[in-house]
Amino acid sequence: MPIRVVAFDGDDTLWHNETRFNLTQTALRDLLRGHVPDADVDAHLAEVELRNLGLYGYGVKAFTLSMLETAIQVTGGRIPTADLEVILGWGKKMLGEPTELLDGVVDALQQLNGRYELLLITKGDLFDQESKLARSGLAEMFAGVEILSEKNEDAYRSVLSRRDIEPEEFVMVGNSLRSDIAPVVAIGARGVHIPYPLTWQHEQVPEDSIPRRGWHRLASIGELGTLLDSLDRPSPTGG
Amino acid sequence: MPIRVVAFDGDDTLWHNETRFNLTQTALRDLLRGHVPDADVDAHLAEVELRNLGLYGYGVKAFTLSMLETAIQVTGGRIPTADLEVILGWGKKMLGEPTELLDGVVDALQQLNGRYELLLITKGDLFDQESKLARSGLAEMFAGVEILSEKNEDAYRSVLSRRDIEPEEFVMVGNSLRSDIAPVVAIGARGVHIPYPLTWQHEQVPEDSIPRRGWHRLASIGELGTLLDSLDRPSPTGG
Repeated sequence: MPIRVVAFDGDDTLWHNETRFNLTQTALRDLLRGHVPDADVDAHLAEVELRNLGLYGYGVKAFTLSMLETAIQVTGGRIPTADLEVILGWGKKMLGEPTELLDGVVDALQQLNGRYELLLITKGDLFDQESKLARSGLAEMFAGVEILSEKNEDAYRSVLSRRDIEPEEFVMVGNSLRSDIAPVVAIGARGVHIPYPLTWQHEQVPEDSIPRRGWHRLASIGELGTLLDSLDRPSPTGG
Repeated sequence: MPIRVVAFDGDDTLWHNETRFNLTQTALRDLLRGHVPDADVDAHLAEVELRNLGLYGYGVKAFTLSMLETAIQVTGGRIPTADLEVILGWGKKMLGEPTELLDGVVDALQQLNGRYELLLITKGDLFDQESKLARSGLAEMFAGVEILSEKNEDAYRSVLSRRDIEPEEFVMVGNSLRSDIAPVVAIGARGVHIPYPLTWQHEQVPEDSIPRRGWHRLASIGELGTLLDSLDRPSPTGG
């Protein structure tokens, strides 16, 4: 069955995301070490984020709340409120920043548009993701947009069934093995992994936990058109 | 054209919502008046929330961040971090609370299920709304769920078009004139307003700004079945 629908992850696949989280986290580390020089801010924040995931979900607002909690805990409550206000401001700055596209994204989407139905399937905070998409200038490229609270097998199955897409004609492109590749391969569709230099700890999975077949890895989105062409030409190895 | 699809708002239409915001806001007022006895906490919070709406959107996380900002500002930064931790805890408590259904909701939905296609169309934080729906036990009643970042004419038009629903066969049921009734009537569909005792200031619109025709008001969801029956019987006044 030929590929009909190509779906893209947003964060760190089409536009930079983890970088801005990382920059903010570096600033938090510096701020808190001013109060507690030997604090392991990163470890504490990761722990707080993971603990809050079930209540907060993903996104900048969740991150901001977890930063505030971390700041209070790491300093034993001694952090001045002025510093907490600074952290609140970081969250707002992140939410208001322009959407910075990765290299080659516009060309790649333009090349694929018309040949395939393009979807955006992102995870995270609805309001923030819609706002980023609007600011990206890419919205009109997509036949549909799905913002999911979690990208697992059930979520993908439900998107495909709602849109009358067979797994065999669906390809998911993204930077996260955990969210964009593993669940997609598990439901019989194909994945294209385009790694981003930074990956949030929570998104990391051991590569050998994913089947070897059913997905491909590219160095950049510019190679996607050629790969999709080759996938549509049946090969003796089954691709 | 007979009514085919009946959509429900979630917050304060199917389950209590504003009440828990109000209780938390009362607690914030008491907390801050302990530091600044004559502070107009409500007015300040409303102002902060409105200013942050374009960045944060709706929901408990947005509310929590705005409460923290308000607390710092109202006290001129003199609020102890222990109190800010209390506020963080209120947010988590709200996010984890059981979904408390309004009276008559289960009966009404059971009565309508099968006769109409039922949708849930809510606004707010994706993660929180999905979690509330899951905890409500109502999920299987709905043929579809739409969580929107804003309920305006474009958003309703897009839901209807995506789901192949004609405005004439669509009825929206909700407690907010601004979000559930006005935009629905404006696109040629019908609304059923079921007021909730409390309405967030931001959701209030003057009633005379809404056309007189195209919507109805009920005292409770228990009357909905009878109203829908009567709407499907053409009347000389056009309903």
